[in-house]
Amino acid sequence: MIFQNDDSIMEKNLSRERVFDGIILHIDHVTNELPNGKAAKREIAVHVGASAVLPIDGEGNIYLVRQFRAPIDQILLEIPAGKLDSVDEDRLLAAKRELKEETGLEAENWLHLTDTFTTPGFSNERISLYLARELHQSDACPDEDEFLNLVKLPFKEALDMVLRGEIRDAKTQIAICMASHLI
Amino acid sequence: MIFQNDDSIMEKNLSRERVFDGIILHIDHVTNELPNGKAAKREIAVHVGASAVLPIDGEGNIYLVRQFRAPIDQILLEIPAGKLDSVDEDRLLAAKRELKEETGLEAENWLHLTDTFTTPGFSNERISLYLARELHQSDACPDEDEFLNLVKLPFKEALDMVLRGEIRDAKTQIAICMASHLI
Repeated sequence: MIFQNDDSIMEKNLSRERVFDGIILHIDHVTNELPNGKAAKREIAVHVGASAVLPIDGEGNIYLVRQFRAPIDQILLEIPAGKLDSVDEDRLLAAKRELKEETGLEAENWLHLTDTFTTPGFSNERISLYLARELHQSDACPDEDEFLNLVKLPFKEALDMVLRGEIRDAKTQIAICMASHLI
Repeated sequence: MIFQNDDSIMEKNLSRERVFDGIILHIDHVTNELPNGKAAKREIAVHVGASAVLPIDGEGNIYLVRQFRAPIDQILLEIPAGKLDSVDEDRLLAAKRELKEETGLEAENWLHLTDTFTTPGFSNERISLYLARELHQSDACPDEDEFLNLVKLPFKEALDMVLRGEIRDAKTQIAICMASHLI
């Protein structure tokens, strides 16, 4: 049914139960009252959240990482990113940490691009996306068991890769496409 | 550690175990051999996948839906989308079904924008994104327990909402930003 005001689409929470406790994911079953008065069970993957950063240098080159992703059993080209240490960690500080860990880069100029809910249908994950400029090299120090290939390429080439469907990581598609309207 | 060839970042699967069976999510624990020979456990939320569609009419208006999202306990503005009926369902047919169900619209002209891995760090969800043109009205028929508000707005206004951070659903940010380079 399609309604035209928000009251008519709100759900009211009746109960919430933790049904799975994992390594990085926790699954809650939530029972909500629907606008039609019926009860519906919703399944939610609870995630701590993350920050991600698109680093671009003075020559218009950006820095991406190639990383094996077990859930899809393939290597993806992505902007540097990482989970928050805790739900209330400062998201800009997390972005700065991940940029340094994964690329060895630090940046003097940070712009918050947007926040994105990656999968609001089944997860609460929110990623904060930043554009980092005025870069300088420091030392890369990825987690001991994190294996990355650093990739440097012109921004325009990366945008073309997004538009051709060759970059398929959501946060990376968003950051590059948004940046194309800002830089 | 940062390496410069893909062999040095590949992981080799050693075992896979289903540890949670949910309503729409299934959690697998995968043990992989890392490039350094160590074993690492990866947690994967297994999802059937989805299709989503950005419908735009001859006057440059697009059609979005406002929907309550339990995982984030708020209403989001999103492009019409829905889960596949099965992992091997035709993704274009699924997009056509969801467009009709959620907006009552059908389209004569379909363009595949891209596919996106929404959360490759913890889920295998892949969403196929389409641009739908040459629209005509049919009858909306959402799932009985699906409550939506249909929103019609100029494409340029939607793009500005993405750039201002007012549209925060990942698939919607991607579709609108990509379409801005194509239409």
